[in-house]
Amino acid sequence: MAVYTEVTDEELAAFVGAYDIGAVLSLKGIAEGVENSNYLMHTQAGFYILTLYEKRVEEADLPFFLGLMEHLSTRGITCPQPVKNRAGAALGRLAGRPAVIVTFLDGMWVRRPDAGQCAMVGEALGKLHLAGADFAGRRANSLSVQGWPPLLHAVEARADEITQGLGDLIKQELAHLEGVWPQGLPEGVIHADLFPDNVFFLSGKLSGLIDFYFACTDAFAYDLAICLNAWCFEADASFNITKGMALLDGYERVRALRDEEIAALPTLARGAALRFLLTRTVDWLNRAPGALVKPKDPMEYVKKLRFHQRVEGARDYGLNR
Amino acid sequence: MAVYTEVTDEELAAFVGAYDIGAVLSLKGIAEGVENSNYLMHTQAGFYILTLYEKRVEEADLPFFLGLMEHLSTRGITCPQPVKNRAGAALGRLAGRPAVIVTFLDGMWVRRPDAGQCAMVGEALGKLHLAGADFAGRRANSLSVQGWPPLLHAVEARADEITQGLGDLIKQELAHLEGVWPQGLPEGVIHADLFPDNVFFLSGKLSGLIDFYFACTDAFAYDLAICLNAWCFEADASFNITKGMALLDGYERVRALRDEEIAALPTLARGAALRFLLTRTVDWLNRAPGALVKPKDPMEYVKKLRFHQRVEGARDYGLNR
Repeated sequence: MAVYTEVTDEELAAFVGAYDIGAVLSLKGIAEGVENSNYLMHTQAGFYILTLYEKRVEEADLPFFLGLMEHLSTRGITCPQPVKNRAGAALGRLAGRPAVIVTFLDGMWVRRPDAGQCAMVGEALGKLHLAGADFAGRRANSLSVQGWPPLLHAVEARADEITQGLGDLIKQELAHLEGVWPQGLPEGVIHADLFPDNVFFLSGKLSGLIDFYFACTDAFAYDLAICLNAWCFEADASFNITKGMALLDGYERVRALRDEEIAALPTLARGAALRFLLTRTVDWLNRAPGALVKPKDPMEYVKKLRFHQRVEGARDYGLNR
Repeated sequence: MAVYTEVTDEELAAFVGAYDIGAVLSLKGIAEGVENSNYLMHTQAGFYILTLYEKRVEEADLPFFLGLMEHLSTRGITCPQPVKNRAGAALGRLAGRPAVIVTFLDGMWVRRPDAGQCAMVGEALGKLHLAGADFAGRRANSLSVQGWPPLLHAVEARADEITQGLGDLIKQELAHLEGVWPQGLPEGVIHADLFPDNVFFLSGKLSGLIDFYFACTDAFAYDLAICLNAWCFEADASFNITKGMALLDGYERVRALRDEEIAALPTLARGAALRFLLTRTVDWLNRAPGALVKPKDPMEYVKKLRFHQRVEGARDYGLNR
């Protein structure tokens, strides 16, 4: 949950005055999104989300994210749309931070996804990968294998405060993955953070995708590996192969995986687990007393990583071939 | 900011299914209200606030609060209205907690109120006191002078962790107030927590009042004393007599203060400062590391209390007679 930045009435009125959406009638900080400050804003023209980008988002990346959301929408993917001001700009500044207004998207995220929802997410991910194919923007994935050593360095000395041996686990896993990380897989725009809270459902159907602020150019199968981690484990960290099967099957209904992607899946899944283990460990060790955001538990990803380490092939995730 | 309780999709659908407001389209936790979990809910019928009452609110008091909101609305006070389900009940249970759906109220609260807004708040407070006159419900003020000794007891041993001498300051102030606390002042329904974040403005006018969960039966002038504390001090804890004058003047345009209320005002203002100093001290000393709610600074009320201790009469607050 997140509201890091308070906005004064005067600043807000000046900012919104540059748009054709009427006066602000209501502004409520919403408890979603860990990276930015998000407000639900009611204006005379309707409901919107006002986002202020906090330090974790690179300002130089914002045109990529906003352009991607616009592009995907024209290709049939339902996602929030940046609203442009009268000068034609989607990106502005408010309270000293980059800020945008995006359209409000109905929908609810599921706390406990079932296999049917996993199938729909797989399908949506496949569609996202195809829809991004002709997007001109490129952005390197700063949280892929090259981005992990600095994170290891940041947590190495204190990781064992979380659990005995965590530092060694991360170090050894990183060394392994650096040696075997796949190259040359089919790539394009990936979401890179398609967790349940970023996927909306309405009346039993997937209704939209949100939060493109980790999107980047990387291997499609890595995005799928992130989703296997995010959607197919139970609360006790056991892998639900029925959900895995549903997710992979949903994906392949849209985009068939190549042999080299299938072969790489266990390695990519280990990498995805390590990536979230690393960032959660950083957040956990740096949590401030009294902070507004409750950091997510790194131990969840220790367990997931250990599962992937024992996997022998994509069949163990439910792939039927 | 507050979302203490997560609601599952199934529970929510079952709860909302008992109302005539259509299906839920969106539910976002909002970062407002320290005592309860609040969600902004979009249904097929419109926007609502869903509130889950957490431990600080006594379930037995809820019919008083909800009945009061309904009563005030019929008397011309704009405030959220409890929505009744098909069985005619405003109060239900969700995720193991008492829960209500209230109407969504547009409006923005002001971070830095000016004298004009103080005048409008004074006037609204006077109207609230008159509008509550024929409300049948009664609720004792559990946070008035009789309720302070248990709070002192709870913080006594550790208050000096906040500032040297705080324990003694509170103890001596409480002893003083117990001896001089006024009796027999005009009383009725008071809001008892009319801080800036509970007052909405739109287009320069006061548009509504929210959060009646401290409302109770007590002296009207005590409510005014709470507002003097909440609205008329600057960020550096200096008292702005222009704002005090505006607040008192606004109030008296609606309801004239009696001589005994005027005489009691400095004592009531000290009591109001002590009441918020006590609860903030409790919250501060009991803040959990990583908690979602950032406790408010007790020192603000130490400074306000010290101001009131030096006040000689209601003239020092800006009363022109």
